[in-house]
Amino acid sequence: MRRVAVIGVGVTKFGKHERTCAELFAEAAADAIQDAGVSPRTIQAIYFGNVVGGEGERQLHMGPQAGSVLGLPAVPTTRFETACATSHSAFRHAVMEVGAGISDVVLVGGAERVLNLPTDVATEYFAFASDAVFEQSTGITFPGVFALIARAHMTKHGTTEEQMAHVAVKNHRHGALNPKAQFQKEITIEDVLASAKVADPLKLYDCCPFTDGAAALVVAAVDVARKSRNPIWVLSSAAASDSMCLHDKKDLSRALATERAAQAAYRQAGRGPEDVDVVELHDCFTIAEIVATEGLGFFEPGTGGIAAEKGWTSLGGKLPVNPSGGLKAKGHPIGATGAAQIAEIVTQLRGEADPRQVDGARVGLAHTLGGNAATVLVSLFGSE
Amino acid sequence: MRRVAVIGVGVTKFGKHERTCAELFAEAAADAIQDAGVSPRTIQAIYFGNVVGGEGERQLHMGPQAGSVLGLPAVPTTRFETACATSHSAFRHAVMEVGAGISDVVLVGGAERVLNLPTDVATEYFAFASDAVFEQSTGITFPGVFALIARAHMTKHGTTEEQMAHVAVKNHRHGALNPKAQFQKEITIEDVLASAKVADPLKLYDCCPFTDGAAALVVAAVDVARKSRNPIWVLSSAAASDSMCLHDKKDLSRALATERAAQAAYRQAGRGPEDVDVVELHDCFTIAEIVATEGLGFFEPGTGGIAAEKGWTSLGGKLPVNPSGGLKAKGHPIGATGAAQIAEIVTQLRGEADPRQVDGARVGLAHTLGGNAATVLVSLFGSE
Repeated sequence: MRRVAVIGVGVTKFGKHERTCAELFAEAAADAIQDAGVSPRTIQAIYFGNVVGGEGERQLHMGPQAGSVLGLPAVPTTRFETACATSHSAFRHAVMEVGAGISDVVLVGGAERVLNLPTDVATEYFAFASDAVFEQSTGITFPGVFALIARAHMTKHGTTEEQMAHVAVKNHRHGALNPKAQFQKEITIEDVLASAKVADPLKLYDCCPFTDGAAALVVAAVDVARKSRNPIWVLSSAAASDSMCLHDKKDLSRALATERAAQAAYRQAGRGPEDVDVVELHDCFTIAEIVATEGLGFFEPGTGGIAAEKGWTSLGGKLPVNPSGGLKAKGHPIGATGAAQIAEIVTQLRGEADPRQVDGARVGLAHTLGGNAATVLVSLFGSE
Repeated sequence: MRRVAVIGVGVTKFGKHERTCAELFAEAAADAIQDAGVSPRTIQAIYFGNVVGGEGERQLHMGPQAGSVLGLPAVPTTRFETACATSHSAFRHAVMEVGAGISDVVLVGGAERVLNLPTDVATEYFAFASDAVFEQSTGITFPGVFALIARAHMTKHGTTEEQMAHVAVKNHRHGALNPKAQFQKEITIEDVLASAKVADPLKLYDCCPFTDGAAALVVAAVDVARKSRNPIWVLSSAAASDSMCLHDKKDLSRALATERAAQAAYRQAGRGPEDVDVVELHDCFTIAEIVATEGLGFFEPGTGGIAAEKGWTSLGGKLPVNPSGGLKAKGHPIGATGAAQIAEIVTQLRGEADPRQVDGARVGLAHTLGGNAATVLVSLFGSE
């Protein structure tokens, strides 16, 4: 495998948009191509992530549509869908294509649009990522899934609702520094604790929002990357799975797929959690960030809540987590999320994150989770 | 890139099934794993193709579901969707993963179930593979798209309805020799010409059916393959795209993406159309087979209809096309079709196709088309 780098990133404003997914992607892609400083003609493949476009836009087969909208109709395209981990999965496969020497430059990313749908309809479509026969039929949707995970973590480790609230407050504080974030306002612990119950013990401010948006990355082989202005190297990219259904998981307080993907990513990169300076991870609900910081090896099992409470994961803390604002405040356009997380890590490792910059960050990690934590992607990046 | 082979194939009976896509895939996958003679524990990744499961089964995120149903919940999975080319696209990416040395054994395939839906609903979901804004809004569905293509070919080249009927008759004759085929009855030219108009000039027997089914392949690296009973080598696998919308295509009588993908596949393999002994290609409508036989370089532009009429593409002819019965008679479970075509080529090159065997076949080609021919995959295979 050749060395592979991300040489360009583009992210739309996250929030509500009145455009199709392919059009949203075109904006992010044009920015990423310009950032990379390459001609669009150098792009040899398009890897496109989208989750509920069939349901929400009556649009499948979005790969060639994205190529056509970009003015690149002859470039081979592939659409990926692995629930909320979709565009991180697309990224990992793009790294393979470039690493294997099949292409030198690949455009990868994703888009999602759901704010044109009623909230209950969007919630129902998102639930299609859980098992139709065994889980959807019970009426459970993802807030309920993560409420069960929160209860398991609280019962086993004594994690508190206040500790979860600290995650929300921290990510809103970070999001206020990110002009692309859906929410750019700070909130307090009291705001979180007083917000409406969604699925006990999760309250409104424990949950990420529905979001429209797109993100794109230009992935390039070593020879192309060395000529670009500020390449960020892919140290590793790993995927792992776990049982589809909650009833097959032995311990809901852990995400086994996160642990497996992290171990594989660290092994590939020859690095460990102690080498990581900045993290973007999948905080679809506050408890998900706590479970992930443990599964990624940053904190001992059961201490993720304490880390949040003590500010270790805040900008200026021991290990800043989600400086972008995370899914919680930046927003969560599910097909775009993985690529947007990677875009933030690249921006951080380039030293271009302005007020939310993690000083001296040289190694970054992106973590994206799909469904009931049945799919997880973890990638490591380095500035040299 | 290392050499890569297909070492195991499995295909369900095509027709109507009362099981989920993941369960259908499990049957095909179990057969493929047994055929490969490997332990399920050797599988390092699952590449899963499905198109309208979100719409038809309320099920996205089918990758880990397929892994769970197979008893392999920890194996990383990816779901692919590129309309009717879905599982051929998954196959091409699996070849990259193995060729690049990331995994030694990958399970790849797909499944689709639509016969539980009313025909008009299935037709509507399939149309999601065309552009929602510019094409679906006009009311056109795929029979209409291919009727336009047929008219363009008839006008430019003088192709006749009788020539198209010859494709249907030939593929039904082949399908009658395939115990897995949805239709195992022969039909006559008169049957085709007298069948009900679907979209002028296409009649019922010019159209492939809706189908439930699954197909799976075990793809392995050279070292594993050499220990297997009868590996079939992947000589090349290429993808190409064309404009998403019909109004952006200059000449509907050609499929530019087929021509591009074929040229790339021949170049990678160091072979040409004259080296190919057996073909499985995308005959979703009879005109599609005629256009494809020209685009793949087997016959001069405009002479595909003549080739069908003269029997050159029949078993026993110069170049047998769709010995399995093709999409037309074997059936077209869209997410499984590409893998099923490859399974047939592997079976042919192994010399195990029994009454539909192409004598002495040593090089085979699989061709799969997505949407308005906006995505095309072409792969070449060899028995040594």
